[in-house]
Amino acid sequence: MSVLVGVIMGSQSDWETMKHACGVLEELGVPYEKKVVSAHRTPDLMFEYAASAQERGLKVIIAGAGGAAHLPGMVASKTVLPVIGVPVKTSTLNGLDSLLSIVQMPGGVPVATVAIGHAGATNAGLLAAQMLGAFDPELQRKITQRRERIAKTVVEKSVLE
Amino acid sequence: MSVLVGVIMGSQSDWETMKHACGVLEELGVPYEKKVVSAHRTPDLMFEYAASAQERGLKVIIAGAGGAAHLPGMVASKTVLPVIGVPVKTSTLNGLDSLLSIVQMPGGVPVATVAIGHAGATNAGLLAAQMLGAFDPELQRKITQRRERIAKTVVEKSVLE
Amino acid sequence: MSVLVGVIMGSQSDWETMKHACGVLEELGVPYEKKVVSAHRTPDLMFEYAASAQERGLKVIIAGAGGAAHLPGMVASKTVLPVIGVPVKTSTLNGLDSLLSIVQMPGGVPVATVAIGHAGATNAGLLAAQMLGAFDPELQRKITQRRERIAKTVVEKSVLE
Amino acid sequence: MSVLVGVIMGSQSDWETMKHACGVLEELGVPYEKKVVSAHRTPDLMFEYAASAQERGLKVIIAGAGGAAHLPGMVASKTVLPVIGVPVKTSTLNGLDSLLSIVQMPGGVPVATVAIGHAGATNAGLLAAQMLGAFDPELQRKITQRRERIAKTVVEKSVLE
Amino acid sequence: MSVLVGVIMGSQSDWETMKHACGVLEELGVPYEKKVVSAHRTPDLMFEYAASAQERGLKVIIAGAGGAAHLPGMVASKTVLPVIGVPVKTSTLNGLDSLLSIVQMPGGVPVATVAIGHAGATNAGLLAAQMLGAFDPELQRKITQRRERIAKTVVEKSVLE
Amino acid sequence: MSVLVGVIMGSQSDWETMKHACGVLEELGVPYEKKVVSAHRTPDLMFEYAASAQERGLKVIIAGAGGAAHLPGMVASKTVLPVIGVPVKTSTLNGLDSLLSIVQMPGGVPVATVAIGHAGATNAGLLAAQMLGAFDPELQRKITQRRERIAKTVVEKSVLE
Amino acid sequence: MSVLVGVIMGSQSDWETMKHACGVLEELGVPYEKKVVSAHRTPDLMFEYAASAQERGLKVIIAGAGGAAHLPGMVASKTVLPVIGVPVKTSTLNGLDSLLSIVQMPGGVPVATVAIGHAGATNAGLLAAQMLGAFDPELQRKITQRRERIAKTVVEKSVLE
Amino acid sequence: MSVLVGVIMGSQSDWETMKHACGVLEELGVPYEKKVVSAHRTPDLMFEYAASAQERGLKVIIAGAGGAAHLPGMVASKTVLPVIGVPVKTSTLNGLDSLLSIVQMPGGVPVATVAIGHAGATNAGLLAAQMLGAFDPELQRKITQRRERIAKTVVEKSVLE
Repeated sequence: MSVLVGVIMGSQSDWETMKHACGVLEELGVPYEKKVVSAHRTPDLMFEYAASAQERGLKVIIAGAGGAAHLPGMVASKTVLPVIGVPVKTSTLNGLDSLLSIVQMPGGVPVATVAIGHAGATNAGLLAAQMLGAFDPELQRKITQRRERIAKTVVEKSVLE
Repeated sequence: MSVLVGVIMGSQSDWETMKHACGVLEELGVPYEKKVVSAHRTPDLMFEYAASAQERGLKVIIAGAGGAAHLPGMVASKTVLPVIGVPVKTSTLNGLDSLLSIVQMPGGVPVATVAIGHAGATNAGLLAAQMLGAFDPELQRKITQRRERIAKTVVEKSVLE
Repeated sequence: MSVLVGVIMGSQSDWETMKHACGVLEELGVPYEKKVVSAHRTPDLMFEYAASAQERGLKVIIAGAGGAAHLPGMVASKTVLPVIGVPVKTSTLNGLDSLLSIVQMPGGVPVATVAIGHAGATNAGLLAAQMLGAFDPELQRKITQRRERIAKTVVEKSVLE
Repeated sequence: MSVLVGVIMGSQSDWETMKHACGVLEELGVPYEKKVVSAHRTPDLMFEYAASAQERGLKVIIAGAGGAAHLPGMVASKTVLPVIGVPVKTSTLNGLDSLLSIVQMPGGVPVATVAIGHAGATNAGLLAAQMLGAFDPELQRKITQRRERIAKTVVEKSVLE
Repeated sequence: MSVLVGVIMGSQSDWETMKHACGVLEELGVPYEKKVVSAHRTPDLMFEYAASAQERGLKVIIAGAGGAAHLPGMVASKTVLPVIGVPVKTSTLNGLDSLLSIVQMPGGVPVATVAIGHAGATNAGLLAAQMLGAFDPELQRKITQRRERIAKTVVEKSVLE
Repeated sequence: MSVLVGVIMGSQSDWETMKHACGVLEELGVPYEKKVVSAHRTPDLMFEYAASAQERGLKVIIAGAGGAAHLPGMVASKTVLPVIGVPVKTSTLNGLDSLLSIVQMPGGVPVATVAIGHAGATNAGLLAAQMLGAFDPELQRKITQRRERIAKTVVEKSVLE
Repeated sequence: MSVLVGVIMGSQSDWETMKHACGVLEELGVPYEKKVVSAHRTPDLMFEYAASAQERGLKVIIAGAGGAAHLPGMVASKTVLPVIGVPVKTSTLNGLDSLLSIVQMPGGVPVATVAIGHAGATNAGLLAAQMLGAFDPELQRKITQRRERIAKTVVEKSVLE
Repeated sequence: MSVLVGVIMGSQSDWETMKHACGVLEELGVPYEKKVVSAHRTPDLMFEYAASAQERGLKVIIAGAGGAAHLPGMVASKTVLPVIGVPVKTSTLNGLDSLLSIVQMPGGVPVATVAIGHAGATNAGLLAAQMLGAFDPELQRKITQRRERIAKTVVEKSVLE
């Protein structure tokens, strides 16, 4: 099955966060690839990656970055595939810098931004799956079942002592 | 052609912002519907809207709200369609409250958040189109052409005097 | 004695914070119940809980949540009982996101918001008791005595060395 | 009918905001009084007001203030009646200073904080009514009817053109 | 020698910070007293302390508090002695709440605010000494000598390896 | 009568704010001087001003500045007189930058910081007077009377309609 | 004389800000060019501009942008010339988003960031001139004279009435 | 070879951050000197350092400081050499105070500001080298090679497991 989602990140240290996106994709059986692509250190590689994504058959790109996080927005400027941006938590401003750098895109080039850090990465994987699921009933069913399973856990397993 | 995108907003006053999302969808020929649905004032209507969206054939929901902006996240909790959240600018905290209320979703229920205000609404329309375009070459072409047109304007029309 | 206060929280991990609300209620002899009810993972359960609270005899609801904290506001949209919101501290934005998501409610649906974290949870318990105490002289006396006891400790027990 | 709610504010200029609290109380037929009481300029008056509120028959106090907004918290330190704090918008920090000064109370002395500005004042009036309504079925019915009326307006009157 | 500076703090846990103010006063031989006085838990004690400070011969009051830090401003409302406010660092908002609660006083009742935390407490001690020193040449000389000693250390002792 | 308070500001445009400090000093009969002294544009003048202030008989310096507001702190580094810093409101960050630049001084060199903008400037004048008043019973009486006059106005003149 | 400084900006609307950079360069006789180059709308043009800057003889690039301001950082990733970033003020977050997006660059690719808005643009022009002036005594003299002229104006022309 | 870059910092504790600037300069063979120079504790030394820098042959100054970080801006006020400011992370506000104190300089006296903390210090060293490199082809080549080496590492060495 061909790769549908590209998961990229600005540096190897972002993997600790971004692996949560990959974990969800794996769990739902969505074929994906992962790669370190740095907006600032490997700008040409980034442009190539973004520009060729569509013809390589990708349907969604997930990009995580921290600080002056330009990766999601710049990838979005080079493709018309939907791009999901994950703001990675930073040691100084806790990821508020990452969040604003990713979400405040000018009109014309959207980035679908999720929460800062691990929860955001998990949701990036789910969001990509939901985009695909809108056109893939089987996948949509799996997502629905995952939700039901989690809801059940909330109801049955919570212990407040 | 059946409606593919639902554009909802928490109050009529959000229309000034959200009309930019509708404008883009219209421009690209994406069939959409629009409606005021308030998380806090019409919670049951909101749940019905979200819960029935998938079977009514919608593929994406765009939800705009301001302040303690719960509409996008609550709609997202009742559907597995991708939900795009638009933080509406507020008179007190300029939309920082809207942004954080929308983007900081817990793992499990993603909202694709865009920029605060008009630019964000425009991008919400584009992002919805890009999600659909990943499965609709004709629409994808239109989005690409729109981008090229805008790029050309930047290059040819800018006057710095 | 029938349950007067419902203490709910968005996830089991919020218990570490919310137990301080329960501790105060216990200390003052206010009958309460506690439960995990997630706005995003169990939205229907949340609506049922909120909608039935009044007829089940509850007089106040305390709801704690973190991040895009929608639980207090959504519960408030489904009941006319007073709802107290406790912003749980988050690992990224320290609970500023929780605070703004809870307190910035639009006109029409109030949430009585307290401080972020433990102190806030303690105060949520006290605030619920004070609401009840306004109509229950015995309880009001207990609250007054608790205050006097604490004031005395401040005066007599403080050691500055 | 004796006065049940005391509405106080730090300065006459806060009236523009706080009149929205009084408007709601009037609309719901809740007997209230209003007064300028400044924490910093009339501290003794403030203490007298707070200390005598309970024996004068008040059930709730609403206090609005801006900047280093100490009025709600200091009133709360002198009474065990529930105190609702309204953060008034400021010309420099937009009311973020008011909000934090009011909401971040230490464990032991709660203030029920609402949103910054007009919406918050409206909700302060409603919250006071809801606290009373928990023990007054007739008032509770009025609040429920008010909500239904507003919900109906959202559904029927919204025009998106 | 009679006590010239009163050092008070909202809770015993503030001592870790406020001891730095006392340390400086001791070092410079300024007679001071120290006490826990809580705005919220012992409001009457606070008023008594502030109202009697002038006739007891105090010339300056240093007040430290955290969160919704009302102590410095409320003391300032009850005396025309200069009041120095020390924002204590908080576990949630790092003392930004303390800072804004102390510094944003309305026109009419000033609080001389210093930095958040230890450095602020040290400077509160120095600032009190400088106020006294403006009328006490001997003390002023000691302050000058302290500065020169520190400057010398910077120049001679710094090791960058 | 010799000048006791020096009021300086970083630029002529700060006068709109700083005139409120001078107004209070005038009202209370405190002899003062005023001058534009820029930390960045006239650094030598600033150092001369600060270094000679003590021998010229000044007892307090009030310094107002906006943005990267270095004037109060740098003046404080060149004198052991107490220095009061007024954060002037800025067009971009509303004076939050001014506030943090002034208040967050390192241990060793205090600046007595007041609120952002007009209220802060008024309070700077009062604070200077209160410092002098601690050693001048006549002045202290005037300050007390000013307070009583204002309190009376609050009580008698407030109109809430 | 060949062009030494390239002034670029993300959109024509940034010209209102960026003209202040050009004004300073003109005043000091530094040859420059100006152009709209958008990171998001014309990414290839941006890369070409940055990649060819060095061989075209430029010595410094000034780049202004607002919101998720990626232009300065991305240009910096494609050239080893020094790049100065000007955060343009935004209508929602006042340029705090622009500032963080520009200044928080990861180690390896610096951007010399100046203040938000007009003052920053003016300083960008001066900073570029100062970089050149370090190797051009004649230019350095002009900058020194400009400073002296301004200092004189501060001293002689300020009117405080 | 004569010293071209001066690296100064406000206190010895800043060395942990600033050593990263020196590390880069060493790696690229740029002759530099380093020194503790405190704006607040050794103001005269700071002025001497800044005023003599040009005639001592320096071409760039790098200044790091935290909190109310006045060192970079004050040095910039005393020299027309380009000054790079490094905001050191603080224990209370994480360096946001340092950043705003350094970057928000008024028009007329620029400071080239880099990121908060280690990454910023590294970039300060690189930025200084890039300024020199614009007039030193050999140095420019070394910087280019350093970039290529790092890019290669990103591509070849990243492991995502």
